[in-house]
Amino acid sequence: MTEQATEKIDASLVKAFVYSTKNVLNTMVGVDVELGKPSLRHDPQPSYNVSGIVGFTGDVVGNVVISFTGETAGNIVESFCGEKMSPQSEDFSDAIGELCNMIAGNAKKEFGLNAGIGIPSVVIGAGHMIARMSDVPCVLIPCKCDVGNFAVEINIKQVACLTAEVK
Amino acid sequence: MTEQATEKIDASLVKAFVYSTKNVLNTMVGVDVELGKPSLRHDPQPSYNVSGIVGFTGDVVGNVVISFTGETAGNIVESFCGEKMSPQSEDFSDAIGELCNMIAGNAKKEFGLNAGIGIPSVVIGAGHMIARMSDVPCVLIPCKCDVGNFAVEINIKQVACLTAEVK
Repeated sequence: MTEQATEKIDASLVKAFVYSTKNVLNTMVGVDVELGKPSLRHDPQPSYNVSGIVGFTGDVVGNVVISFTGETAGNIVESFCGEKMSPQSEDFSDAIGELCNMIAGNAKKEFGLNAGIGIPSVVIGAGHMIARMSDVPCVLIPCKCDVGNFAVEINIKQVACLTAEVK
Repeated sequence: MTEQATEKIDASLVKAFVYSTKNVLNTMVGVDVELGKPSLRHDPQPSYNVSGIVGFTGDVVGNVVISFTGETAGNIVESFCGEKMSPQSEDFSDAIGELCNMIAGNAKKEFGLNAGIGIPSVVIGAGHMIARMSDVPCVLIPCKCDVGNFAVEINIKQVACLTAEVK
């Protein structure tokens, strides 16, 4: 059914997201995140209903999706912005987008590569599906914190290592 | 309810998409597209169930969503790739993503600005919502062709015009 991923994902890319997710949630939302064991995600749907998608360009290409339950997203936005917001409001998705941007930006710095990130797209809706690259696996990191569950779904690959060599 | 857009969208950005949509569909899918009158889109949901999202960076920021009915997307993929594909398959979303990438890339050339485009995200699912920038309106161009209906939803703005001045 699903095409087999032909490449492995670099563990250092995953580790960068483990670090940045903990760091950004702690600093910006004030919660301690407990990250579970990363696993491969085969289901084409993101784990939950609210997804922030960040595209990578340059030495690293692909998408990272940060997927929240509606309740978690609401709680996180409330802590992040200091007020309750309707998921229909533009400020709600702006806040989720900004948080995803920070997590991706923080991870990007950790990569030590010449990667760029696009502006995040925030998608809300039960059962939506987000396309992935088929040649690298999607690595899911389950995340738990006081305000609820979410998941980081990493589907990126390194396409050049020129700047990595320089380190 | 909805925040009022405080800026106007530059007509030349919209015209670039009119040109590129006709051009790419004609060249790559072999269909003539009839584009309707652009209007403002206030509904936070894309017009249809299959959305290709392309993020712009650099002198132009924001997202453009190309939104297809499931049937149109299926027909377009079939013409584009020469075979019928299941909407669940990765090749299906790859094809939609590639087509959106071409439309956005073609439009970008028309802008004559120093803009970049990210890799497209393809989202499939009834009733999904894609976040937009609130300070510029979303301009919708309805599109009709032999294989069905789709819409180009433009929510971008020019943030610098240095390269435009040089022309």
